[in-house]
Amino acid sequence: MVEKQCKIAKDASYVLAYTDTAEKNAMLASIADALLKNADYILKENAKDLKNPKLDTVFIDRLMLNKERIDAMAEGVRQIIALPDPVGELVEEWSVKNGLRLSKVRAPIGVIGVIYEARPNVTVDVAALCIKSGNAVVLRGGKEAINSNRALYRTMVTALKDKGFETGMLQFIDDATRASTEILLKQDRYIDVIIPRGSDGLKQYILENSKIPVIASAGGMCHVYVEKSADLEIAEKIVINSKCNRPSVCNAAETLLVDKAIAKTFLPTVLSALKEKGVKLYGDSATRKIVKDVEPATDENYYIEYHDMIMNVKVVKDINEAIEHINGHNTKHTEAIVTSDKKAEELFTSRVDAAAVFVNASTRFTDGFEFGFGAEIAISTGKIHARGPLGLKELTCIRYIGRGNGQIRG
Amino acid sequence: MVEKQCKIAKDASYVLAYTDTAEKNAMLASIADALLKNADYILKENAKDLKNPKLDTVFIDRLMLNKERIDAMAEGVRQIIALPDPVGELVEEWSVKNGLRLSKVRAPIGVIGVIYEARPNVTVDVAALCIKSGNAVVLRGGKEAINSNRALYRTMVTALKDKGFETGMLQFIDDATRASTEILLKQDRYIDVIIPRGSDGLKQYILENSKIPVIASAGGMCHVYVEKSADLEIAEKIVINSKCNRPSVCNAAETLLVDKAIAKTFLPTVLSALKEKGVKLYGDSATRKIVKDVEPATDENYYIEYHDMIMNVKVVKDINEAIEHINGHNTKHTEAIVTSDKKAEELFTSRVDAAAVFVNASTRFTDGFEFGFGAEIAISTGKIHARGPLGLKELTCIRYIGRGNGQIRG
Repeated sequence: MVEKQCKIAKDASYVLAYTDTAEKNAMLASIADALLKNADYILKENAKDLKNPKLDTVFIDRLMLNKERIDAMAEGVRQIIALPDPVGELVEEWSVKNGLRLSKVRAPIGVIGVIYEARPNVTVDVAALCIKSGNAVVLRGGKEAINSNRALYRTMVTALKDKGFETGMLQFIDDATRASTEILLKQDRYIDVIIPRGSDGLKQYILENSKIPVIASAGGMCHVYVEKSADLEIAEKIVINSKCNRPSVCNAAETLLVDKAIAKTFLPTVLSALKEKGVKLYGDSATRKIVKDVEPATDENYYIEYHDMIMNVKVVKDINEAIEHINGHNTKHTEAIVTSDKKAEELFTSRVDAAAVFVNASTRFTDGFEFGFGAEIAISTGKIHARGPLGLKELTCIRYIGRGNGQIRG
Repeated sequence: MVEKQCKIAKDASYVLAYTDTAEKNAMLASIADALLKNADYILKENAKDLKNPKLDTVFIDRLMLNKERIDAMAEGVRQIIALPDPVGELVEEWSVKNGLRLSKVRAPIGVIGVIYEARPNVTVDVAALCIKSGNAVVLRGGKEAINSNRALYRTMVTALKDKGFETGMLQFIDDATRASTEILLKQDRYIDVIIPRGSDGLKQYILENSKIPVIASAGGMCHVYVEKSADLEIAEKIVINSKCNRPSVCNAAETLLVDKAIAKTFLPTVLSALKEKGVKLYGDSATRKIVKDVEPATDENYYIEYHDMIMNVKVVKDINEAIEHINGHNTKHTEAIVTSDKKAEELFTSRVDAAAVFVNASTRFTDGFEFGFGAEIAISTGKIHARGPLGLKELTCIRYIGRGNGQIRG
């Protein structure tokens, strides 16, 4: 069954690949309308999932739908309609000496497999991004959200059918078992890329078991480095925001690095502000000499993504030590420097290895919506294909078209 | 030992990533000079590999070095010096509403692992491409070429050391066993991408055993489609060139598709020209009704990459059948159409799924050198990261730099 669905998606992907923008936008509009019209049905199905007694409050918050959340999904689809279609974009064009004219153009990838966990809105976000970028998609959501996901999928497919559109490009695996995932990961004949959204355990399982290329995030072990020339008011604001704005997400900061030259001035103020917010602190001996009530940090601490109101602190002797510490401990997600020195900015941005590096801004900005990509399908910390937020453009690849008048190779 | 080498490469990659173009070019110049100066030593070591009594003539041709081939390697390195440095290229730049200025810039991938077989020139080509693109490289060549590869590697490393350059970014695995490959494929902590160059068996083994992303070619099941409006003289030239110019390589054509409307005119001429060149033909019943001495083709034939003077022929009722046949049988490498009709050109180039599609030109042009990329590290038939010839630009990824003045997320 899973294999058959993947084959249907592949066949449909060839048609969607050359479907024009107006038609794809009409498909998305029918989906946005249907989400609003079917809100009661979707909420009724969502209520079945919420009855599961094993769910904790964090999980329930992710899983729970209401009118506002359904409105937000429909609004997300409308935002994707408003974004430019990346398919067919001419990336580069040149002629070679024999007169052959080469064009490098953007094309859909083909079939995207998305494996996700609790959040039902992923079903809609991903479907909309894939349709707009000309890709078919095979959706495999978590079992805890199966009724919600099925209702959203049926709503979308029915809306498309009602308007006379084909629906093969949207496939939903209704059997949310490990067995169906295993079969999915073997469909390298039909699926071009797998994108996991969820826990680190899910990602590791997929990386180890997939013959299909995987684009994934390794999580976010993010740092804020306050360089000695920093405006300390700005620095404090950025540290607090990077740690406390939403500590559970991957672009939240876990470690604060402070230049030795300003440690005595900056640390007392910033650490007391963090404590006031309820952040628990682990620090190296230099930090603990300056500020009391900081737990001792071992090197182990500097590798932990707390996803919580906990932060590591370390005093570094200069920017080189900061860069070395970051490259040795980070997950290549997001790093920030606070500085007024152009040379320090240049050194940090060219030498720190991360998908996104911010200068005098919060780590929290690595996000498809903040970047202006509309929804994002995931954030990549890998080094190939795309890094950072994956939007419409990142769901395409390129191809070459060579136009000649009889050129042969000598 | 392999793990240690990968770690050295990773550490070196951070330094090479911000080494400027002039210095990288000076490294490459020292390598080009040293190849010429050490030709006798390299040839002596190559002679040891050639003594292997198990080698057949095709293998010997790939393995064998001489003064001309060493000159060509040095010349290849000089061509890479002349190419623009992709690192630091500003791909896109925009501001978001809070004033944050986002730049998308090209950056090295990090550490490239290349696993290859008989051709010793790969050792030099790959090392030069990686240095220029700011990547460290771990080279794992075939055991049949071990003396040649080692001699080339030592020549490069000695040349760099003599000029005072670091050499950690070039690592060569001297233990050409399956065991060393297995260890290499587990170094996802240090290696960012694996690129196999060699047999399909090698690639399959790597795809199944690597946790590291792989960029590979699935081989080349390439087609030439002669559409009904084609200039038949041009068509004949392109068919002959695509099949016969170098039948052993991946961009050679394996199947000829001919429009029903012109089959009676075109097939007798083109097939007799192919036969004159010594090409053995397999055809469908429509073809065999028009031309005698064509073996019957089963559907199986249309999936075989002969890499030899053998070609399949099929009559199709129209361009849609041609496109459907190609998408159902190809390996997404290279496809060609011969046509004078702009509508047919548009249909074919937008609907055929391949890394490269040629209009009125031979399939043989999918090649880094022909594209103006200088040497190529491989040709990708995958759908993510890059398709087609992989040159300097394809050995980079992108990263985001966000510059602000205190922006935090609300």
